[in-house]
Amino acid sequence: MVIVGAGFGGLAAARALRRAPVRITIVDRSNHHLFQPLLYQVATAALSPADIAAPIRRIFRHQANVSVLLAEATAVDVPGKRVVLADGVVDYDRLIVATGATHAYFGHDDWAEQAPGLKTLKDALRIRQRILLAFEVAEREPDEARRRAWMTFVIVGGGPTGVELAGTLAEVSRQTLARDFRHINTASARVILVEATPRVLGAYSEDLAEAARKQLEKLGVAVWTGVQVTGIDAEGVCIGRERIHAHTVLWAAGVAASPLAQSLGVPLDRAGRVLVEPELTLPGRDDVYVIGDLAHIQQKGALVPGVAPAAIQQGRHAAENILRTLKGQPRRPFHYVDKGMLATIGRGAAVARIGRLKATGFVAWLLWLFVHILFLIGFRNRVVVLLQWAWLYATFDRGARLITEPLTEPLVGSDSPAAPSCREPSAR
Amino acid sequence: MVIVGAGFGGLAAARALRRAPVRITIVDRSNHHLFQPLLYQVATAALSPADIAAPIRRIFRHQANVSVLLAEATAVDVPGKRVVLADGVVDYDRLIVATGATHAYFGHDDWAEQAPGLKTLKDALRIRQRILLAFEVAEREPDEARRRAWMTFVIVGGGPTGVELAGTLAEVSRQTLARDFRHINTASARVILVEATPRVLGAYSEDLAEAARKQLEKLGVAVWTGVQVTGIDAEGVCIGRERIHAHTVLWAAGVAASPLAQSLGVPLDRAGRVLVEPELTLPGRDDVYVIGDLAHIQQKGALVPGVAPAAIQQGRHAAENILRTLKGQPRRPFHYVDKGMLATIGRGAAVARIGRLKATGFVAWLLWLFVHILFLIGFRNRVVVLLQWAWLYATFDRGARLITEPLTEPLVGSDSPAAPSCREPSAR
Repeated sequence: MVIVGAGFGGLAAARALRRAPVRITIVDRSNHHLFQPLLYQVATAALSPADIAAPIRRIFRHQANVSVLLAEATAVDVPGKRVVLADGVVDYDRLIVATGATHAYFGHDDWAEQAPGLKTLKDALRIRQRILLAFEVAEREPDEARRRAWMTFVIVGGGPTGVELAGTLAEVSRQTLARDFRHINTASARVILVEATPRVLGAYSEDLAEAARKQLEKLGVAVWTGVQVTGIDAEGVCIGRERIHAHTVLWAAGVAASPLAQSLGVPLDRAGRVLVEPELTLPGRDDVYVIGDLAHIQQKGALVPGVAPAAIQQGRHAAENILRTLKGQPRRPFHYVDKGMLATIGRGAAVARIGRLKATGFVAWLLWLFVHILFLIGFRNRVVVLLQWAWLYATFDRGARLITEPLTEPLVGSDSPAAPSCREPSAR
Repeated sequence: MVIVGAGFGGLAAARALRRAPVRITIVDRSNHHLFQPLLYQVATAALSPADIAAPIRRIFRHQANVSVLLAEATAVDVPGKRVVLADGVVDYDRLIVATGATHAYFGHDDWAEQAPGLKTLKDALRIRQRILLAFEVAEREPDEARRRAWMTFVIVGGGPTGVELAGTLAEVSRQTLARDFRHINTASARVILVEATPRVLGAYSEDLAEAARKQLEKLGVAVWTGVQVTGIDAEGVCIGRERIHAHTVLWAAGVAASPLAQSLGVPLDRAGRVLVEPELTLPGRDDVYVIGDLAHIQQKGALVPGVAPAAIQQGRHAAENILRTLKGQPRRPFHYVDKGMLATIGRGAAVARIGRLKATGFVAWLLWLFVHILFLIGFRNRVVVLLQWAWLYATFDRGARLITEPLTEPLVGSDSPAAPSCREPSAR
């Protein structure tokens, strides 16, 4: 059998089949499993890529029924029972599709260049480079207005990623970089978090979302809710009809399911997710499972959220259904067990819900820290990350403040055209 | 005053001037100081970039007379007393040029694409990606001869970097990856170290060089000395008239001084180094110092070697001469104090000379380890590197086995043209 995607879901499925009489091929276009919940820490220079990633081969070194294929899956040929790769095909008898989601610009793909999203290590390194370069250019820029634009950071999207990025960026500018520059006061950097709905962390209850907003504002983040981004270009962001001059815009707003879903030949939801059967199978096919962020599953009237615990539960459940099929037993419907939600905001600041219990502030943050260290893959990674966090907590110092890409264009002095004014948001 | 380059030399000079009544501007095109002696460990996935690099601003955070400029210096206008940047100019009253060296292909610049060298973090990440991808492609390649070419690694140049790369590559293929692949036996990978002169580590005595060769061969490296590389292309390497089919060729052969030297208007040696005065000044100018790998200094009939201790001593000496000038005292000639040499070969294998004492094997390796941890910049880096090494030593596991660049072309199945035969080496 074949598993496409070695995220939380694919990994959980393969592990659950470790004693099963099946030969598993895992196909992934990366050679590593990525612990995405900490990706924003790579983007903000606290951790190195290797701290939150583990080679897929290494993970399955001792699981003899798994082989790993580094390849990009471009389509699934469901009737032909094969996965089409960029450079070949792989036949399967059973298939688990777990290719997840990527960020989406809601029809504004031209924003991608100016407002990078955060899904891969490459994305994180690009964002890190942008943030660090912005301060470097500001240090050299003599013009007050231009310097201001380099020291303005806009994060679009008030979900967990946006909140984490905004909170951390405020900490970076106010603490980490505070004494490193001679011409600018990094603490005067503006960090603006923009959210179109009335509140940040929309998946949380109103009181927790309000607590998150307060903690963000305490860290120095301007939280703008209920306002819509109508344009992004090299000069900044249009928020409604107001233009914010900013050279660093980060996109944490939309997700769209992996395009692989489109080749499955079944109905998708608006975000491109597959409307799977309760057993997690593709409608009409009992040899294809779809799990994780790629799957649309309703439970008690609500969508199962696109979070790591849900993907892991689905991976395990798909594996169990495959085992049951092998034994001639009927497949069982999936039931999501919601253990709670955690979002971190900054140093000692977080919100948490565990079952019906709620926590905010330092307690929630400790809980967040504990859970993330616990679920990080690899003993080595846990030790290194704990060490880096202890150092960061004690000193505010971020070890991975590296600009590794060579400078390809002049940093200062290039005259940019006057930014056009912003238009009224179009009714969509 | 201005210091161009924040390598070992530039850093030592700036630090030695910490209490001097001067305002120092450090210009570097990277935002970090790089501990180059450990760069090969990033290229071979043992360490992360952040482990061996430190932000220059962070290093000088508490030295108020230093400001840092992230910029590429393209020339020095010696009569005009200014440094020309890619995007501006900086005036100076005194200047220290410490831009070091880069790798050189001896007139074969077309080899650069196929045989990357190792000077920057970007280089190291590119080499890491190549090495890891080679094994991934081999795992998928059904054709025996082609698989062999993917599992053949040629390192050109038997100096310290070449020896380190070859020894580590042998260890990676024989230990680290040993159980991770299902279709290939990584231990059968060929690692060939090619050196044109009769022995590796030419700067060492004959017995130490011979000890190094033996240790390399014990690790599984084929050491070919006295043979010349006459061609490098996508299919492999021509060594004399013999063609070695290899898709991974690493260049550790030649260095050339930074091209900035050419703008100084003084005689250079064949490698492009500046023939400086004994006081480390530019001939005819007492306001410009040239130090480190960029400087050509003869002492007792021999060239002062291009190693970190020499650069540090020169940086301190240039600083001292500037202080003496400020006090109206005469400048002093530079004297290099040779404390010894250390080269590591692999796990528990190294050669060392300390004064007149010589050591090989485990003792030399422990010494190497101690010295490198000691000179690494930043307490955090020391702790993290020690931890990573302890883990590596205990498990052979290399944490940074990451392919972070997206795959841009098919890994397998592309038919390559038959490689041309190799020509007789031309007399040069």
